[in-house]
Amino acid sequence: MSDNTVEGFREEREELNNIVMKYAGRDIKRIFNVDASVYKAGALPAKVKELLGLVSSFVLRCDDCIQYHLIRCAEEGVSSKELEETLAVGLVAGGSVTIPHLRKALKTWDEMKQKRDSLP
Amino acid sequence: MSDNTVEGFREEREELNNIVMKYAGRDIKRIFNVDASVYKAGALPAKVKELLGLVSSFVLRCDDCIQYHLIRCAEEGVSSKELEETLAVGLVAGGSVTIPHLRKALKTWDEMKQKRDSLP
Amino acid sequence: MSDNTVEGFREEREELNNIVMKYAGRDIKRIFNVDASVYKAGALPAKVKELLGLVSSFVLRCDDCIQYHLIRCAEEGVSSKELEETLAVGLVAGGSVTIPHLRKALKTWDEMKQKRDSLP
Amino acid sequence: MSDNTVEGFREEREELNNIVMKYAGRDIKRIFNVDASVYKAGALPAKVKELLGLVSSFVLRCDDCIQYHLIRCAEEGVSSKELEETLAVGLVAGGSVTIPHLRKALKTWDEMKQKRDSLP
Amino acid sequence: MSDNTVEGFREEREELNNIVMKYAGRDIKRIFNVDASVYKAGALPAKVKELLGLVSSFVLRCDDCIQYHLIRCAEEGVSSKELEETLAVGLVAGGSVTIPHLRKALKTWDEMKQKRDSLP
Amino acid sequence: MSDNTVEGFREEREELNNIVMKYAGRDIKRIFNVDASVYKAGALPAKVKELLGLVSSFVLRCDDCIQYHLIRCAEEGVSSKELEETLAVGLVAGGSVTIPHLRKALKTWDEMKQKRDSLP
Repeated sequence: MSDNTVEGFREEREELNNIVMKYAGRDIKRIFNVDASVYKAGALPAKVKELLGLVSSFVLRCDDCIQYHLIRCAEEGVSSKELEETLAVGLVAGGSVTIPHLRKALKTWDEMKQKRDSLP
Repeated sequence: MSDNTVEGFREEREELNNIVMKYAGRDIKRIFNVDASVYKAGALPAKVKELLGLVSSFVLRCDDCIQYHLIRCAEEGVSSKELEETLAVGLVAGGSVTIPHLRKALKTWDEMKQKRDSLP
Repeated sequence: MSDNTVEGFREEREELNNIVMKYAGRDIKRIFNVDASVYKAGALPAKVKELLGLVSSFVLRCDDCIQYHLIRCAEEGVSSKELEETLAVGLVAGGSVTIPHLRKALKTWDEMKQKRDSLP
Repeated sequence: MSDNTVEGFREEREELNNIVMKYAGRDIKRIFNVDASVYKAGALPAKVKELLGLVSSFVLRCDDCIQYHLIRCAEEGVSSKELEETLAVGLVAGGSVTIPHLRKALKTWDEMKQKRDSLP
Repeated sequence: MSDNTVEGFREEREELNNIVMKYAGRDIKRIFNVDASVYKAGALPAKVKELLGLVSSFVLRCDDCIQYHLIRCAEEGVSSKELEETLAVGLVAGGSVTIPHLRKALKTWDEMKQKRDSLP
Repeated sequence: MSDNTVEGFREEREELNNIVMKYAGRDIKRIFNVDASVYKAGALPAKVKELLGLVSSFVLRCDDCIQYHLIRCAEEGVSSKELEETLAVGLVAGGSVTIPHLRKALKTWDEMKQKRDSLP
């Protein structure tokens, strides 16, 4: 995912969240709030929490969730080796049915990395 | 999902079902029959059964199944508030990995609703 | 589940919830609150919401959750036929791997029903 | 699982199925019928179908279903090596969360095998 | 899936595997090796192992994995009737949420079959 | 889980692993090796990897796996607050069907903690 694609991902996400909020009652709104709050730094740093969110999304095989946490991992300064070790835990726990998600995740990561490396 | 899209969804579904029936033996055919029969009105009205089918599809994260039950829910006169409360149960039970499916479901519902509201 | 068993289920649940609350931070507490709130009567009656919670628990194959919603369904006046139709939707959607949960659920229901029928 | 245990498993299963049938409507009965019919010999021999049922139950992590198919596999003359290769496919596909089910399955198989080997 | 599509599927798969291997450490590489090794002929023939892989992918609802095993099943000489019986086991075990995957699988199979039948 | 229970858990696990190894071929053995290797300290410390294993087991709802990782988390010096934040991520991602596993996990943690606190 190039930065353009990251931007596109964010725009579509925001647009769809607007539709969700148009219909959402108090309970759905509270879930969305907790879903943001739970990744905030606490006893564990935000970086570790994003790795926890990534591996959870990975073993539950939710591509959209994986994409989101990959972007957040990059923002939190996760290294390629740290990412690989996290996905290895997920691959072992979740089995070979996670391999298609591994392929997509590393393609996104590779594109994000190439974009960053090309910055002046 | 506009009525055009609903139409497109139905056409593709029918085309694929024809391929299934070309290969299906007696057992697959019986499953398809029961899968239709179980949503027919009984002690519970068809509307409630469609909500049950919707929330099952939602927590099992099957987008095609969700689309199908959304169309059927609209046909059974489910209101936006009833839909939202059903999806809220699914979101709480199934967790934030269902959020991408919530976004798609409410986008489809929103488009179906706008189409109906624009009818003379 | 006889009323004794229902009582035992509730006591163990409360005891364990006390341990959860001893460790729970704000986010876990909020999830527990929403998990209660979402089943309150709204546009849909509480009875329908309990059926939605039951079928969600059933297709996700969570025996503890199924037990809880069965008790609540009985409290909301769900009939045996309504229960059976709800579980039939879950069985069709979730497949034969739900059958062990169907067996346990109907055994619990049968015991609760016999207890009620024997009341003066 | 010794033959006594196999017998116990069957008795409990039959007792619970009687309760299911007490409540089951036509749709649940039809699912139970198809669930039996689909494992009957056809283009594929019954033995292969039982291995397919076993690996499906294994990756979906349903212990009761695994127990049932293990007994049927023994009846169809599946060898220990064939069983191991089937579970290896399931373990690779389903990941290390299937390991507790692998342990239980092989314990059952080991007990059934020792019982058979001790027969005159 | 026409042979062109099969070719396209393989090319994309190889391209993505190259990205995976660029990042993969020893553990991920070992999982990929075992994922290949487990389908090799042993006590069970390769054909049966591919059917086991197919039904596992099917009940776990992994379209990419299903596509891969369908191609391998065709290579191992699986007949349409054998395929149908395998998918029937998966459909019964995994429930109607697998129906969208059944539709896609049989569409791919139908296209592969028409391509083969048109060869001189 | 008191230290006695931890000891009992380990003994049963070892006994069952012995049965697994009696039947396991090369592929199953390799998976067991990778399943150990992936949690070894690397770019990420062992403690973080255990939290990743814990949250993966938690959202995939595998009680045996959760028990194992809880013991390992205690050995790696995870604090109660770090544990709670990890489980909160899992609860939000995996939904209220994980609550029975949350109850069991915190009961085990509480018992392990009381045992440790009572040591001279």
